[in-house]
Amino acid sequence: MHGPLQMFIRSLHPFLKKTSNVCLSTQRRRALSNGSFVRQLFEQTTSTYTYIIADGKSREAFIIDPVITTVARDMQIIKQLGLTLRYAINTHVHADHITGSGRLKTLLPECRSVISKCSGGKADIYIEHGDEIEIGEKNDKNQRLVLECRSTPGHTNGCMTFVWHKGASVFTGDCLLIRGCGRTDFQQGSADKIYTSIYEHIYTLPDHFIVYPGHDYTGQTSSTVAEEKQFNSRLLKSREDFVKFMKELKLSYPLQIDKALPANLVCGLVDP
Amino acid sequence: MHGPLQMFIRSLHPFLKKTSNVCLSTQRRRALSNGSFVRQLFEQTTSTYTYIIADGKSREAFIIDPVITTVARDMQIIKQLGLTLRYAINTHVHADHITGSGRLKTLLPECRSVISKCSGGKADIYIEHGDEIEIGEKNDKNQRLVLECRSTPGHTNGCMTFVWHKGASVFTGDCLLIRGCGRTDFQQGSADKIYTSIYEHIYTLPDHFIVYPGHDYTGQTSSTVAEEKQFNSRLLKSREDFVKFMKELKLSYPLQIDKALPANLVCGLVDP
Repeated sequence: MHGPLQMFIRSLHPFLKKTSNVCLSTQRRRALSNGSFVRQLFEQTTSTYTYIIADGKSREAFIIDPVITTVARDMQIIKQLGLTLRYAINTHVHADHITGSGRLKTLLPECRSVISKCSGGKADIYIEHGDEIEIGEKNDKNQRLVLECRSTPGHTNGCMTFVWHKGASVFTGDCLLIRGCGRTDFQQGSADKIYTSIYEHIYTLPDHFIVYPGHDYTGQTSSTVAEEKQFNSRLLKSREDFVKFMKELKLSYPLQIDKALPANLVCGLVDP
Repeated sequence: MHGPLQMFIRSLHPFLKKTSNVCLSTQRRRALSNGSFVRQLFEQTTSTYTYIIADGKSREAFIIDPVITTVARDMQIIKQLGLTLRYAINTHVHADHITGSGRLKTLLPECRSVISKCSGGKADIYIEHGDEIEIGEKNDKNQRLVLECRSTPGHTNGCMTFVWHKGASVFTGDCLLIRGCGRTDFQQGSADKIYTSIYEHIYTLPDHFIVYPGHDYTGQTSSTVAEEKQFNSRLLKSREDFVKFMKELKLSYPLQIDKALPANLVCGLVDP
């Protein structure tokens, strides 16, 4: 079994496609049939999710919220899956971990960093509400993999949520979490704003859209818009009760904030 | 926005479907279109993955490798998603954590525990290579959600791998891990056997099948058969080199083994 089989196996090209699926609309079926996929990755110390979203045809990819300590792992996956990383996106200036976007850029010169304009963070590309970031075949607009940028402040002023409409997925960063939401007690946090962000820009998405959060502390990997609308007890409160609830949360000071914040303002590279 | 919107939201029934997708064969499209899904869950202390696999139509479900410390979380998800848990399956007698199958059974009387015949563990149903476990509509064989049981010894003698053909997914327990494999140095472990198990019963599956492992210690959530065939460096060794490599791994004694093994022989209930 050893020799010829292994030779054969090594010669295979990877059919590497993974995404999360709900009702298979024609649009979604097309996106998945072309082999586009999401690969979810986890950083245990800060319970952070990183996402690689790749276009099946061109093999171009985004990474959302990479962590500096797992850049080596992410680089290996990008290399093994034969991907060209075009954009390293941060949903916001993180307080709990140092971003890997700067390090990825030094390793992959074709990669550009992305963050919201009002985040205060440094990046190659600044985005605003309504912008779209695209990868894929340049000659065929219909085949492009597009992320819509939605401004969802509240955890920080600069928080963005990214919607992959064709993949029926939403990457919510630290705005909406599974059965929870980001804290609102520092970094221009506002419980009132996060409530509006979630109701206006996430809960208005189709019910079957997969929710991919920036963190989970309970071992859950994903949810759906319908599920959160029905079971996220924080957000089922009235706006007034929610604001009161968030104010009364006695959360401890993030362990890494003092080194993470200054570093994340410059793509995680303190001395770029 | 509060009152009527929330009333409306609460009245929604959950469209909760998630699975991992590769090339959309007609068969797979059918399985996904009926709303069947996999929900992946993580237990941080022992880096264990638990899987809920549900049939979209009947809302019946399997759980694979539940952990006793996360039973409350799993119960809440089962309840919120409106599922009836039919089977709590253990891929093998775990040495690193205590199974949640016994506790789930006491909470959900319709649930039956499942383990391989030669594992030595106690369960309601004993399975062997080639058996199938089914859930779903009893009157329509084509609509049943079927897991094929494959005996894949090597980590333990009683290890089973479960193949959901229509969902193009394989649940490998502690046999094949992402870019690795289960240890083979105790519990009737055999490097020679695990090599055969992986090559004969996992690598023979279609390339695009999603690999869902029993653990991952690097923050990866899934892989594919093609990826492992191409990049799992341990298994790319010759059988002889692999056996030597596994023998020379100096792994520490599992922290929880002395309490986990006796408990897992009786569904995690030391005093059932």
